[in-house]
Parts: sequence; structure tokens; C-alpha cells
Amino acid sequence: MTASYEAMWERLGLDLEAHASLLEVLGKFYGDIYLSQQGRLRGMEYLDFVLSEIHGLRIRELEEAKAQGRKVIGTFCVFVPEEIVWAADAIQVGLCAGAEAGTEAAEKILPRNTCALIKSFVGFKLARLCPFTESCDMVVGETTCDGKKKAYEIFSDYAPVYVMEIPQMKRDSDRALWKAEVLRFKRAVEDLTGREVTAERLREAIRLINRRRRVLQRLNRLRAARPVPISGRDVLLINQVSFYDDPDRFTQKVDELCDELEEKVRRGEGVADGAARVLLSGCPMAVPNWKLPYIIESSGAVVVGEESCIGTRNTRDLVDEGGTTLDEMLDAVVDRYMKIDCACFTPNTERLEHIVDLARGLDVKGVIHYGLSFCQPYAMESFKVERALRDAGIPMLSIETDYSMEDVEQLKTRVEAFVEMIR
Amino acid sequence: MTASYEAMWERLGLDLEAHASLLEVLGKFYGDIYLSQQGRLRGMEYLDFVLSEIHGLRIRELEEAKAQGRKVIGTFCVFVPEEIVWAADAIQVGLCAGAEAGTEAAEKILPRNTCALIKSFVGFKLARLCPFTESCDMVVGETTCDGKKKAYEIFSDYAPVYVMEIPQMKRDSDRALWKAEVLRFKRAVEDLTGREVTAERLREAIRLINRRRRVLQRLNRLRAARPVPISGRDVLLINQVSFYDDPDRFTQKVDELCDELEEKVRRGEGVADGAARVLLSGCPMAVPNWKLPYIIESSGAVVVGEESCIGTRNTRDLVDEGGTTLDEMLDAVVDRYMKIDCACFTPNTERLEHIVDLARGLDVKGVIHYGLSFCQPYAMESFKVERALRDAGIPMLSIETDYSMEDVEQLKTRVEAFVEMIR
Repeated sequence: MTASYEAMWERLGLDLEAHASLLEVLGKFYGDIYLSQQGRLRGMEYLDFVLSEIHGLRIRELEEAKAQGRKVIGTFCVFVPEEIVWAADAIQVGLCAGAEAGTEAAEKILPRNTCALIKSFVGFKLARLCPFTESCDMVVGETTCDGKKKAYEIFSDYAPVYVMEIPQMKRDSDRALWKAEVLRFKRAVEDLTGREVTAERLREAIRLINRRRRVLQRLNRLRAARPVPISGRDVLLINQVSFYDDPDRFTQKVDELCDELEEKVRRGEGVADGAARVLLSGCPMAVPNWKLPYIIESSGAVVVGEESCIGTRNTRDLVDEGGTTLDEMLDAVVDRYMKIDCACFTPNTERLEHIVDLARGLDVKGVIHYGLSFCQPYAMESFKVERALRDAGIPMLSIETDYSMEDVEQLKTRVEAFVEMIR
Repeated sequence: MTASYEAMWERLGLDLEAHASLLEVLGKFYGDIYLSQQGRLRGMEYLDFVLSEIHGLRIRELEEAKAQGRKVIGTFCVFVPEEIVWAADAIQVGLCAGAEAGTEAAEKILPRNTCALIKSFVGFKLARLCPFTESCDMVVGETTCDGKKKAYEIFSDYAPVYVMEIPQMKRDSDRALWKAEVLRFKRAVEDLTGREVTAERLREAIRLINRRRRVLQRLNRLRAARPVPISGRDVLLINQVSFYDDPDRFTQKVDELCDELEEKVRRGEGVADGAARVLLSGCPMAVPNWKLPYIIESSGAVVVGEESCIGTRNTRDLVDEGGTTLDEMLDAVVDRYMKIDCACFTPNTERLEHIVDLARGLDVKGVIHYGLSFCQPYAMESFKVERALRDAGIPMLSIETDYSMEDVEQLKTRVEAFVEMIR
């Protein structure tokens, strides 16, 4: 796709040469991990297409929307209430944060022992490699962890950053703080777009995003069948793409894919005969962070659930659609996001319950907990997760890694040993 | 002191043998770093005495108070509103967190890449080495950083933990959250002690703690003289002891020491002829974390200010004493603590301004920024601090270390090079 988009990338200020190298590496990586799979659903062709065009066609769509006066808002976190963004006629997109890029530049303004995701988003910006970041009229940060909270202070020298405060407990005063934050965000987005968030538009946006959540819930139900009808990394990809693609089109395409999947389940066709069913839990995996899922699925296991922000944490809870006034709908949005069981909360016992419920519901043989190196909230919570799972008789393997490929063999050895033990 | 206190330590459940070893090591360390100094103030004898009796006489006082029905509340953070504790007739103390103790045990329930302070307080508990922790009826944690926030969840399996939520910004909704937290804390302390926080008792407590702050402010003014009349590590020790000692007695003794210091300043006597004046800034240094100050003051520099929680962050702001009703006084407490310029806030520009003002006011040649390894908030903020100081023409050295002695020579080389450069 390079040739036809170069002028656009140049307009966005990308480093064309480095960007071309990045796309080449990613293309090869994608081929090895995704296209090499046997018996994939026809519906995955859409995902392959979107991913191959993720820096091309999708960015062109953003460019066209911007030419019509619409605004683009980028985020790294499932706390940003997307309904508000769409209701103000803006477009919400995820930002590049899943690959090593510009790490050297990032480490000049961030401590080396910062998690890979944070170094990645800062590095992508400094190295001018992410067309999403460059398309943004606003980048919404949040205070979910010390690393991001403080990195946004530094990042705001380079991008138009707006920061939302996320409460750390779930009492009345926290809900009040969060509601004030949602209202402040609404005003900021209205100021940016010049469009008022009306009851009618918010209702539409709530339904739009709920539909996307429902189709991903449907996907999650279908994938859990025996035999497992779709690889875990394909489902992860679908979840990842949900952060970038147009929500309406995405929902329709994934719904079609689910129809096909349903047929496949009816026919009793699986993708991983005899593989051990495992649940992946922990830190988010942004595109193209497929290292661990690929290792797991090359080691005699198949991932049947992702308990993460790029997984069930983002799709489990719907916004209540019963509200009729703007206030009622805003309250419904506030309440829905307060249900997120992020490790930023203390205590976060809901997450422990969710993981045990998921593991049981999916009938997995074990859980693999994934922590990004230097991510303190998930690293510390993993001790509680392990204990909750142990009490439930479910084995857990704790993996801590970053985006480098140096530890692949070591991880493979550990994962294989775990799979051998649980199968 | 060992013999006379053994029965008490045994009652508290300490590991007597390991505790005796710890005291021996600390005594030697203290001798090398403190008692070796020439020309110290007579008033420091009181501090030497308190420190030598910190696990002895002070714990006996706590024991006696408990026998009379008073409660002991332990903390690790300057956000805990001490006025509430004293107004409810409880005793607030700091907890052991400044030495490597029980690290191996701590690393079984915490990630290895957790900051030394957190591993220390958990380790002290697991290894049964801190008589303060063992004396506590309540340990008050807070959400100032991911590491502590999540560690308290684990620590609560071992101690009676109560957690306060600290806001992350300083807007109206944050103040409302913090006020709710202070009121919740007041109720919890009242429940624990069975004593109501009345207007009269709160007024007394506000004055008590303000007096302690004022005497430390006086100390800070006097130490800044030319020539420098007291070593930085002696002032650090005084600040450290303020967290353990009886506030009334401490204030009186430090006031006497200040009288002596004032005389010394009048006579123009200094302790560090020709040494470069430096400001120490960053993470707190709990007893007996004297490594870096000692290195600095053995390298041709003298510390004339501590911009940290065990320093100006804890003493700069007084609670307004103008309130007459309980509500007014509680509001004054709330407002005072909202002024704390902890790196947990985003943005935290006040701290940058305070550091530059302090550095200028103290007329230092440079600033040494101290970060505990894996303390993300201070590590990330150090980039902003360095820039603010650079803009003000003040050199800064950034040091990241833990409690081990392995890097002493390396740190000494770096500090000496910095001092050589700035003097």
C-alpha cells in the first residue's frame, strides 16, 4: 500500500523511510503469526484487510472526515467514555503502542524501567511513526497508573493531551469525582468539535458502542465451544481492530464472521485438536503485540478468553439504554465505566471474582497471567489472582515480558512446561 | 538497651535474635555516620538518645499508653492527617521502612522490582523486626503510588490496614473527594479510640502539630546560614525523629537545639568549611536511610535543604488556626493537606516552583535528585525537575538507588564529580 499513501503520510509528518521499514517488519510478522494459520474463517479476510490497511485506508478515512470538519480523538485506555466522543460527532481511535519503536528517543525523556506500552506510545510519537497519533486533534490520557499519569505530563510537550482522572476506589465520593470527570470531558469534547452532546445524539452513540460490545460478546460465546472453532490470536486481533475501525462497519463485519463461526460450531469443527484450553489474563496487548499468544498457541494450548482491556474488560459491561433524558444517559455512562475492574482500583476484588468465573465458565485447564515488565498494578495484583485461582483449583502461570523478542525461547520453554503440566 | 526491653519485644512477637542483630548493625552504622561528626550541637545528644532508644524507650511509652487505653496508629505517608489522630487521643507513629530487612520474605509476596521502601515495610513485618508496626492498632495506608496502593492490599493480610484515597488532581471535585476521605478517616479513628473528635480537641491537635512544624521551619531557616552551622544529615535525623517522638517533647527539645544553633550562627561557626551547598530533592528517606546524605557530605558538599516528605514537604504548610467550629477546623485540615506537592498529583507544577524557589532561597550550587529505584512518580517527575532547574541555571544530578550498600563506591564517584563541577 506504500506508494498510494506516501503523500498522506508525508502530510502527517511521518518519517517515511522508518515507517516503510516498520510496515515491512509488521507485514512479515503478521504473515508468520496470522496468515500461516490453517482453516481460518473466511470472515477473517476482513480483519486481514483492515490490518493491512490500518496505516493506509483507515488514515485516509480519518483525513476525509477531518476535511469535513470532524475531529479525531486518540486514547490508550478503555476508561475514556467513547459514547461522549461519538455523540459529539468526533471519531475515537486507539493509538500505536504495541511495538518497539523510537525506544531510544523515548528513553531520553522517560526512565528506562518504564513499561513497554508507555515507552512505545512515546517512542512512536518521537520517531514520527504513528499516523493515528499524528491525525489526532486530542489525545486523551488518564491516571490509571503512575507510569501513564506522569508520562502524559511529558507527552503533553509533544501532543495535544487532555487527562481524565480515574478514581481509585468505588465509593460514592469516587463516583461523584468520576461523574465530574465525565462532564468535564463532555465539555472539552464539545469545545473541540463545536457540536453539542444532545440526548438524541448520546442515545445513538450509546447504542452504537453497545452494538459493538454485543457482537464481541457473541464472538466470545461462540469461541468458547468445544472443539474451539477459532484461534485465540484471531479473536485478539478482532478485539484489537475494534479500537481502530469504524464501529458500525466493524460490528456488521464481525456479526457476519460470527454467523460463519456459528455454522462452524454447529458442524463441530475445531482449530486446535487436543490443545489445552487456557485463559489469558492481565495487561492489554496492543497491535502488534502478539508474541505471547503466538507462543501459547504454538505450545499445545489454545486461548479461549482474554481477561484484559483488549478483551472482556472492554466488552463485558453495556451502558444501560433505558435513560430518556440527557442526564439519565450521562448517569448510565458514568455507572458503566465505574464497573471496570482495572488494577488501578483498590481493592479490586471484582477482578478476582471475574477471573475465577471466566476460567470456570470457559472450562480452562489453566490461566496465563500476562504482565508488562514494570507494570506495578498488574504485577502486584497477580499475587492475588494466583491465590484466588489456587483456591479455585485452577493453575496459573505468571509471565512478565516486554516487546522485545529476546526472551521468546525462554518464554516458550516456560509455557510448554506449564501446558504439559495442565493438559 | 537490649536486656531491659527483651520481655517487651517478646510480648510484641519480635524475632529477638534477628532484632538484636539489626540493632547491632544500626548502632554501628549510626556511630560511623553520626557520632563521628566533629563539633556537633549539644542539642543533638537528645536526638542521639531518642534514636538509640527508638525501639526501646519509645516503644515502652507506647506500651504504657496502650495500657491506659490509648491507641497507636502507624503511617508511612505525610498525607495522613495527624491532627485527627491526636484529637482522638491516639498516638501517631511512623513505621520502619528505611532498611533492608526481610527482603527475601517480602519478595515472595511482592514483585522484586518494587521500591525499597515498600519492600522494607513489608519485610519488617514478615520478619517481625519493627516494634512500631507490632504496636499498631491501625496502619494507615494510602494511594499515593501504585506500589503502595497495591502493596497495602497484600499487607492487609498481615496487619490492620486502613487505606485513604489521595486525589490525583487539585480541582473542586478532588477537594470534595479528599474532604470525604478526611471525614471517613475521622469516623474510623473515633470508632477505634472510642473518643470523639471535638472542636476543642481538634483545636489543640492543630496547634500541637503546627508547633512541631514551626520549630522545624525555624531549624530550616537557621541551618541555611553561612557558614552552614549544622550538617544536613543531622537535620535529616531531626526530621526523621519527628515521625516517632512525642510531638510536644520533640518540639521543646528541637526549640532548645535551635536556640543553641542561633548562638552558633551568631558566632559565625560552621561545620563544613568550603563545602558546596546542595539541596537534596525527591523520595523520602526513612530511618536509617542515610546512605546518600553521608556520601554527599563526605564528598565536599553540605546538604542545606531536603525537598522531600521527610523534609520541607512535611513542614512547609501549617493548618490555618482561625477556625472556631469543628467544621471550619476540618476544612482547614483538608485544605492544608491538599497543598502537598507530592508527585502523585498531575500536573505537579507547584513542586517544580517550590524546588526552584528553595534552591534559589538557599543559594545552593546544585540539586541532587534522589529517587528510589522503581519509584515511577519521582523518577518521571525528575525529568521535569531537571528542566525547571536547567531553565533557572541550577545544575542537577539525578541519583537512583535502593537500600543496599553495593553501589556506594559508584555513587561516591558520581557525587564527587558533580560536586567538583558545581563548586
